[in-house]
Parts: sequence; structure tokens; C-alpha cells
Amino acid sequence: MKGFFQLLSSSDFRDLFEQFQTIGSERIPLKDGLGRILAEDISAPEFLPPFSRSTMDGFAVRAKDTFGCSDSEPALLKIVGEIAMGKSGQEISLKTSQTATIWTGGELPLKSDGVVMVEYTHLLDNDTVEIFRPVAPGENVIKAGEDFAENSVVLRKGQRLRPQDLGVLAGLGITEATVVKQPVVAIISTGDELVEPDQPLSPGKIRDINSTTLAALVHECGCIPITMGIIKDDLDIMQRECQKALEIPADMLLLSGGSSVGKRDFTLKVLEEIENTKILAHGVSIKPGKPTILAKKGNTSLFGLPGHVGSAIVVFYLLVRPLLRKLSGKECSTGLQTITAITTEQIPSTIGREDYVRVTIAQDNDQSTYRATPVYGKSGLLNPLVRAAGLLVIGRDVEGLDKDEQAEVLLFP
Amino acid sequence: MKGFFQLLSSSDFRDLFEQFQTIGSERIPLKDGLGRILAEDISAPEFLPPFSRSTMDGFAVRAKDTFGCSDSEPALLKIVGEIAMGKSGQEISLKTSQTATIWTGGELPLKSDGVVMVEYTHLLDNDTVEIFRPVAPGENVIKAGEDFAENSVVLRKGQRLRPQDLGVLAGLGITEATVVKQPVVAIISTGDELVEPDQPLSPGKIRDINSTTLAALVHECGCIPITMGIIKDDLDIMQRECQKALEIPADMLLLSGGSSVGKRDFTLKVLEEIENTKILAHGVSIKPGKPTILAKKGNTSLFGLPGHVGSAIVVFYLLVRPLLRKLSGKECSTGLQTITAITTEQIPSTIGREDYVRVTIAQDNDQSTYRATPVYGKSGLLNPLVRAAGLLVIGRDVEGLDKDEQAEVLLFP
Repeated sequence: MKGFFQLLSSSDFRDLFEQFQTIGSERIPLKDGLGRILAEDISAPEFLPPFSRSTMDGFAVRAKDTFGCSDSEPALLKIVGEIAMGKSGQEISLKTSQTATIWTGGELPLKSDGVVMVEYTHLLDNDTVEIFRPVAPGENVIKAGEDFAENSVVLRKGQRLRPQDLGVLAGLGITEATVVKQPVVAIISTGDELVEPDQPLSPGKIRDINSTTLAALVHECGCIPITMGIIKDDLDIMQRECQKALEIPADMLLLSGGSSVGKRDFTLKVLEEIENTKILAHGVSIKPGKPTILAKKGNTSLFGLPGHVGSAIVVFYLLVRPLLRKLSGKECSTGLQTITAITTEQIPSTIGREDYVRVTIAQDNDQSTYRATPVYGKSGLLNPLVRAAGLLVIGRDVEGLDKDEQAEVLLFP
Repeated sequence: MKGFFQLLSSSDFRDLFEQFQTIGSERIPLKDGLGRILAEDISAPEFLPPFSRSTMDGFAVRAKDTFGCSDSEPALLKIVGEIAMGKSGQEISLKTSQTATIWTGGELPLKSDGVVMVEYTHLLDNDTVEIFRPVAPGENVIKAGEDFAENSVVLRKGQRLRPQDLGVLAGLGITEATVVKQPVVAIISTGDELVEPDQPLSPGKIRDINSTTLAALVHECGCIPITMGIIKDDLDIMQRECQKALEIPADMLLLSGGSSVGKRDFTLKVLEEIENTKILAHGVSIKPGKPTILAKKGNTSLFGLPGHVGSAIVVFYLLVRPLLRKLSGKECSTGLQTITAITTEQIPSTIGREDYVRVTIAQDNDQSTYRATPVYGKSGLLNPLVRAAGLLVIGRDVEGLDKDEQAEVLLFP
């Protein structure tokens, strides 16, 4: 009845992810692009801006006509017209000592190379304006193509689309982009004791917590969860459901429950018996999270996660999320914000495994020091996780931390 | 033709947000709950777990029957049954020196108060097991209600729902939650020079960048953008469109373009003339972003944003986002991650205003030091924003920063 795992360190476990590739791409409209990863470089199909524009309300000038002017010796310029917004500036051409009224964003008239802000001018009459400050050529002007020249690379493959990036694309008339698909993650909870959250409980039954939690974790990571419901602890049913998940097709399968060494541990067997599947890992030297299984079929990853939701969450953040990020075209890391915190009490650990301790975080009054306090509780409990702000990391070569020691804390998103 | 703003500091500007309240609430299904803010406390309608459960595969025992046992002197217990998963444990009641086989998550039999892990046992025959390690009462057991007692408060009003929080609710059979609504933000771009991104350009025209950018910024902040398109620089049309936005009803209106002092500056007039509107601010002493307007009608905020997209983005992160977060039930702050970075070159500024300088960030090899390099470029350009990772803050009492000085950087999300 006994059994032993071949335990990998979390870092060796993550090295296995080299065997998986970023998934395919799709065309999407720009309005759905926030946070997506570009699957190709994007070049500018046209100049941005398309013409030389004023960045101020004021007077378009030939800069040299303003040289040397001052409050006491203003330059006197003749107003030969106004560039209405949205109209071409090219219908006016400035001769020496001529100017045209212009508004922010307006197209400069021909022969004009600078704009004097209205604040530094005074209208003498409808045709004449005094200029109190000189402008250099190009001052208060954005030249045609100054933002992006035609054919220049605007955004690179692998970049995450942020609001400003989407703005540039809109400005260039690009209304679609080719981005990495969002990985589809099938989620199966196994256990004869489970019922759906909206169903009544009978003796010995508990509600399925893992499907809801894992779906939210997948969603939080920018991927698409597909919850396949609760499966009985039955080899045939589990194999059939896994096959269904592969045919979605899912890019990843998360099986939770049944990954320890006990009688119910169908997970390993189920995964082994799927055609062309290779078991890459069974067991990782972290606490909680030891009985984690990783298998591979083509580019699809199949995880057996611990049944305890507290353990499953730790494994998700440490191991599942980096792989999902890699599949999504992002850096293969947890992507979690990390802080250095001071322990408020002694935290025991064991040499030879990494411990991930749920902690609350408080900030000192000066805001520069974080303090981490462990939230103890059995790994099957949710209460400590609900109270915690993150996971404090105790390395495998460390026997525990004293009070007032520095430690790394991975913050929950 | 000249005009002056009454400039507020960014902090005084944000103080105006005290005049706005968190918006209303709505019932939503749990699956849509990630990241939403609870609008009420949630109490447990039942115990979690509903019964005392084993956290290990092994043998349910009366703890005192194992006291003093060891490898050399194992306790001998009689196996009187097995608790099948999903079945009630209450059908078995242990007498002295009796045990029952149990699996992780199984319900403890009556009179049992601990579980011995299978690793510390040896089956002598089908009816008898040797126990090599004693367990304390409660060991390897989660008691009924140990996670959450009936009627105990599980989650508090104002909490943001994370995956583990949603898991708890599922575990308690709660499949809906009352959360703060997502603020609806109407977005209007004004300017006779603008065309939609998917339309051809004619002379003097440029594509509307701001609607796309602002919609993404609103979305990134967990709110619902409604883009109302491009409006001509015409007082009547603008007033009509603002009225439409208020009738959506929008919780916030973002008007971009036309907020400086020039001829085209209908924004202030438009906002002033909407019935029951009060102008709270016109101008803020930050660069870029000075010509920002804030008005209030009931609990609806109306922003006039700078027309330059680079300025509009800075104003959004610094001023719009904190108010949107407040309306959403979150802390009234930018919510941006802040780091301390070392300047790689001198950065000029002007006393009397805060400067927000676009910077790239590099990390030293030791990963503990960040270095910030300004990305210069006119405020109307998008290129520097596309290259930047965040905004370096130069306070209003500082004339600029030297090379190798420490500065605060707000990271773009």
C-alpha cells in the first residue's frame, strides 16, 4: 500500500516546460486586443501623423520671421488666413512676415515651420499680430511621420498590447491584429464525494470547490477555462472525459483530486493510458503541492493537481501559471509581483523541500517596509487562503526562518 | 485671446473625489465574480466542511488507541470497515482498538478523532493493521465547521473577489453574490479633424486615437467603456451628445479634445450649460495634463481631457483612474504598482508643477535595483508612450533630478 514519488524541485519541474511551445495565433478586432500578445511585428502602413501638425493654439509662422523678437520689440506679422480644423493647410503658403491662425492639431500651411503659442501674441487688428517670443524651426510642431514613419516597425511580436499600443494602431488605421490565441484549459474535478455548488448536500458529500477556484485562476491568467464538471473516481469515466477534453481541443487539462499514492489514485493511470501521452513528472518537492503530476500529449499539457484546494492553488501559481503564460506567448514565469518582507515570527520548515507559507502583509508607517505574518491552518482549509495576501518562500536548503528575517513573498494577483 | 487656468495640485484635484460615492450594486453569478468588489458581508449558511474529514489516506482511529506505539511496538487495530468516498462515515462507530479504512476527504466514523497516514501502517491481514506512529486527537482531520462555522462572516463588504474567495463561496453553496456595479464610462472624442480608424484619410484629417486608447484604459480598470464616436467642434452637437451619455446613464463622461483655452474650447462651456452641473476644477498643475476639467452632475463625473493622447493617458492614470476605482468600491488611488528607480541621466523640471516623465526601466543584474531612462518626445507623440514602461514622478518643489538620483516611478499596468 505504500508508494514513493520521484520528487523534482520546482525549478526542475519548470524546466520541463521547454518541451511546450507557444500556441497558435488568431486575427482579432482591436477592441478585443487589450492584454493580448502580438504574434507578429506590426509596421506602419502610412505616416503618423499624416501631415505636419501644430501642437498649440496660435500662429503658424516661418520661424526665421520671429528671430530676435521680444516683449519690447515684437515681430509684426500679417495674418493671411486661418487653418480650420480638419481642412488642409496646403491651401495657404506663407510669404515673408506672413502668418496664419492655427489650432492644436491643425495642418501647417506651406512654407511654415513653427507655431507661436497664442499666449505670446497680441492681435493689433484683424490682419496684424504682434509676436513676443521667437520660435525655433520645428517648435510646437509634430512633423509628418515624426511619430511613426511609413513602413517602420511600430510594435514587435511578443509585445503585450496596452492602451497606448492600441491607440497607435487605431491612429495608423489598423483595426485588427494577429495575436497569440488564449489557451483553452479544461478543468475536471474528480471525487465520488463531490456535488455541484448549487446542489443539496447528502451525508458524506461536499461541494466541489476546485472547479470554481481553478476556473477563476485560469481566467485571471488571461486564458479560457472550460469546466467539465465532476467525474466519479472511475477509471473508464475519467479516461472518457479526458479524451473529450483533448478533443475540444484543450491546450491544457487540469485534473484535480486523486494525485496522491492512495487507492483512489487513478489520475496517473488515466494519464498513462491516454494514447501518446508521456508522464514528465510525478511529484515535486514543495509544500504544499507534492503529489503533482505533469504529462504531455503533443503540445497539450495534462496536470494532476492535489485534491486539497489550498495545495492546488499553490501548485497553480507556481507551476501551472508559468506554463500557461508560456503557451500564451508571455515570459515563462509566475508573473506574480514579488516583494521582500520581514517575518514577524519564527516560521519552521524542513530542509530538502521548498515551503510556500500563506502570509498576511502589513506595511510600516514609512510604507517602505513590508512585514509578513504566517496564516497557519491545515492545507485543506480555505480560511487561511482567504485571509492571506501571498505566499512566503522558504528555500529547500533552509531549515526555517527566524523572527525579523528577510524573505521573498509572492503576492496573489 | 489669452486665458488663465486656476491650477490645482494633483492632490487637491483628487480631494475633490470625496464629493463622489461608490455606485450601486447588482447580483451576479459566481462565475462572473473574479475581481469584483463585494457590496455586502457574506456569512456562511452552513458549516464548511459539513462534516469532519480526513486529510490523508489511511486509517481512522481513536487517537488514544495509538498512544505509545512505535516501529518496534506497533499498535494492533481491528479493521471494522471502510468509509467509501461520498458515503456517510456515521454508519460505523469505533470501539476500543478498532479502525476503519479512510481516504482523503472521507467522513470520519463515529467515535474516531484522528487518522493515521497509510505510510505509517502495515496490513497484517484483511482484518488487522499495525500502526507505527501515534496520532494526537484531531491529527489529519479537518473538523466540521473548522474552515467556516455556520453564520460566521466569510467575506467582508469591500473585498475584491479572488479565486480562493470564489472557491469558498462555491464550497458553501453560494452561487451568486452582490457586488458593486462596474462603472459605465461614456467616451466622446471631439474635433473636426478626426475620422474613425477604419475610414480613409482626406487632407487635414487624422484618425481618432483617443477613443480606442481611453476605452482600453477604462476596460483595464475594470469598468465598462461606451464609445460614442467622434463629435464635431459644435456647441449644440456636443451638448446633445453629452445629454445622451448622461441618459445611458453613464457614471462618468470623458470628453477628449478642446479643453485648452483656445477658440475651440467648447468643453468648458458645454459642461457649464448642462443643467445642474458644477465645474469643480479647470486646470491641474501637472505636466503633461494641465488643461483638465472636472465637472459634477449628481454622482456623475464629467472630465474634459487634453486632446493630446499622451497627455490624456497621464491624466487618466493620475486622476481618472482613482475616481473610477472609488466609484467601483476600491481604494481611491491610482492602483498602479510603484517602484523606486535610479535616474540614468539628468531630468529637468520646473518648480511649481509635478512632472510625469515617460521612462523605460532596466533592472541591474542583481535584480534589486531599477534604473529609469527618460523617453523624450513631444506630448502629442505616441511613440515615447509605446516605448515607456511607466511615469517617473518629479514633485512640484523640485527643479529637476540629477543623474543617479532616486525617484518614484508609476508602472503602467
